[in-house]
Amino acid sequence: MSTVDPTPLTVNADRLRADLDDLAQIGRTESGGISRAAYSEADAQSRTWFRQRCQDAGLLVRTDGLANMFITRPAGPGSPCGPAVWTGSHLDTVPNGGRLDGALGALAALECLRRLSELDLPLVRPVSAVVFSDEEGTYGHLLGSGGLVRNYRPEQLDQLTTRDGRSLITALQNWSEQGWAVGLPTSTELAPGTLHAFVELHIEQGPNLDRTGTDIGVVTAIVGLGGGSVEFLGRADHAGTTPMTERQDALLAAADFLTQLPGIAAEIGGGAVATCGVIRVEPGGANVVVERAVVTLDFRHPDLARLVELSRQLAAAAEATAVSFGVAVRWQPAEIVPPVPLAASVQSVIRDAADALGLSHLPLPSGAGHDSQNLARLAPTGMVFVPSKGGRSHSPAEDSDFADVGNGANVLLRTLVTLASRDGA
Amino acid sequence: MSTVDPTPLTVNADRLRADLDDLAQIGRTESGGISRAAYSEADAQSRTWFRQRCQDAGLLVRTDGLANMFITRPAGPGSPCGPAVWTGSHLDTVPNGGRLDGALGALAALECLRRLSELDLPLVRPVSAVVFSDEEGTYGHLLGSGGLVRNYRPEQLDQLTTRDGRSLITALQNWSEQGWAVGLPTSTELAPGTLHAFVELHIEQGPNLDRTGTDIGVVTAIVGLGGGSVEFLGRADHAGTTPMTERQDALLAAADFLTQLPGIAAEIGGGAVATCGVIRVEPGGANVVVERAVVTLDFRHPDLARLVELSRQLAAAAEATAVSFGVAVRWQPAEIVPPVPLAASVQSVIRDAADALGLSHLPLPSGAGHDSQNLARLAPTGMVFVPSKGGRSHSPAEDSDFADVGNGANVLLRTLVTLASRDGA
Repeated sequence: MSTVDPTPLTVNADRLRADLDDLAQIGRTESGGISRAAYSEADAQSRTWFRQRCQDAGLLVRTDGLANMFITRPAGPGSPCGPAVWTGSHLDTVPNGGRLDGALGALAALECLRRLSELDLPLVRPVSAVVFSDEEGTYGHLLGSGGLVRNYRPEQLDQLTTRDGRSLITALQNWSEQGWAVGLPTSTELAPGTLHAFVELHIEQGPNLDRTGTDIGVVTAIVGLGGGSVEFLGRADHAGTTPMTERQDALLAAADFLTQLPGIAAEIGGGAVATCGVIRVEPGGANVVVERAVVTLDFRHPDLARLVELSRQLAAAAEATAVSFGVAVRWQPAEIVPPVPLAASVQSVIRDAADALGLSHLPLPSGAGHDSQNLARLAPTGMVFVPSKGGRSHSPAEDSDFADVGNGANVLLRTLVTLASRDGA
Repeated sequence: MSTVDPTPLTVNADRLRADLDDLAQIGRTESGGISRAAYSEADAQSRTWFRQRCQDAGLLVRTDGLANMFITRPAGPGSPCGPAVWTGSHLDTVPNGGRLDGALGALAALECLRRLSELDLPLVRPVSAVVFSDEEGTYGHLLGSGGLVRNYRPEQLDQLTTRDGRSLITALQNWSEQGWAVGLPTSTELAPGTLHAFVELHIEQGPNLDRTGTDIGVVTAIVGLGGGSVEFLGRADHAGTTPMTERQDALLAAADFLTQLPGIAAEIGGGAVATCGVIRVEPGGANVVVERAVVTLDFRHPDLARLVELSRQLAAAAEATAVSFGVAVRWQPAEIVPPVPLAASVQSVIRDAADALGLSHLPLPSGAGHDSQNLARLAPTGMVFVPSKGGRSHSPAEDSDFADVGNGANVLLRTLVTLASRDGA
């Protein structure tokens, strides 16, 4: 275990809190949320502020061609070298999102680096921080961290646009001129041996820790993701003149299918979720029986085999429902994104850190995607969750008790020190 | 009963068919449907063609301030006077509608007037034809016939626009300049004593006659109409991080409610229908649990008490569903349009006419609205239905066997003659 005396091994919670408060002023919306879309003016403002905070602490900042930011402590005569322990998260947000999603992990990483400089511990590995670009998918989900795993091909980047059609290439050219993107966006892959381990602190964005009164979540895996659309095709008929028994009502079929989602997820078990967030009907007249109803599905599971089984059962249910309603059905699945298990060795270090701090902890999968799932392809990776009040996220209602935020940062600091101190993990 | 020898009392079916074929060229769409929105260029073309056909037959045509068209036979020394027997329908269509909805009743009315002139029967009442404006509701449903019952107030007409915002007043000014609207649109009410009876021939637009192989439908009532919207209000949550059991999914509540519509309609019975043709969800993200789902309802019944009970049961089901899903609900009903019973005396004349022609007939309500429901407020009114193939309407698939069309026109002619001959009905 760590050779460091644990007593002073905590962050400066007041400094972290002040940073979080300052950052929350950038991109603030009228409804009290935060809008910092990737590569936007607000994103640039948050980075300018963040870079200044790093420079104030004597830290070095460099960026790559996708504007990922790398923060390192200056090397001295006795500094460790070789594969580094990294921590970090992102500064961009969804539209009208919350103040902690991403920001917590990025500012806690900065705080840990500051604290390590102050403590001047005898570590055997470098500890660095990273801020990933476009985690939220303004142009592409987990865009920046993806570029660290494998260089994007130019044609991949050419295709990426915002929903309203603005191109990533134009955004990057603009950011390159401002100095935020340095080098080619197609040359961002990390050199082998760069990374020893990665740890990300994040809010849970779900209700499990809050509901159970647990201090710390030790993330076991990032769930796999399935999706696609189910189209039911019936017949448009006059709503007044067509008897109920002679209809081929595509919306009734879709509705019946949707009511089966909770039962199917429960049968799969193990934290399976299945959601429809989008439904479209045609022709869409108040007095016309629906001819075509298309529902968009999002379903997730931490285990690949059960995720595939979930997909199979959803398709079978859609098929059976269509038959019983006398309508046609077409299931168009998206490619399954497999679950990413996180390193048992890092989970163990996180648990030990929580225990040393007297904090309760719970193993749980992450239902949301995170940059950690990309970093896990490069080195042993772990995630630390802190409770989200009511499980709310991606909304102005997103909040965590500051005691929990401070606990999470302390667990992160101890985890980094352990990973940078010993030979294991 | 009629004092007329029945033998020659049939329409010229070939002439009617040729007229229907000619009219179907006006407003024809690429997919083989018909688009003649009220007060459009295509509507004006169809009226120009129709007026010429009337003039070719020596009939007189006048219009009112809403562009309703009135077609009369010229009065001679021995012509009957006093309250008249009217027949007619409309020439406008829904977008990409069928060739018979409205057109059949309007052209059969013309054919009956032509045939009466040829036969020169000794009638005791005038027989006239009418073409109502905007039956389909481009600006207002049953607009023209509504103006015959009661003058519109200027502020009522000022409010009427198409869905894309074009105003009725502008359309009427344009049509006034072209001579299609004559006089004030606020002065169209029929003088008392104008009407003795009204009969409208129409396609069923439903499957009952076609399915049972019946020649003629004798309409008993035009169903009452209820509607409104049901809003389910839950909570937006992350589709990945929120367990299925901790959601307030407004769409699942709405879907469960929709699956109950057929059962509720069946329990009410007597031809009850309940339809949802429009559903809206918010925020509408693929990975966000639906916070707000709004479904639009259309429900109908020929009996007012049961229509009210249907409305009550739908509201109760929405309420109970919301409770069981832990979401809020708001039911915003539209004002109920009561059913309109049609005159038993006219139904009897229609049945006798069908019997005399050896045609099978079936009493049935009309599930769709018709100008007849306005005329029924002025005089005894009846409707004659002919079979719609597969019950299809408001679509290019709308069709009827021409044998059925001819049968309907013959029943109409006999009915008009009876109503214009005897003292009853």
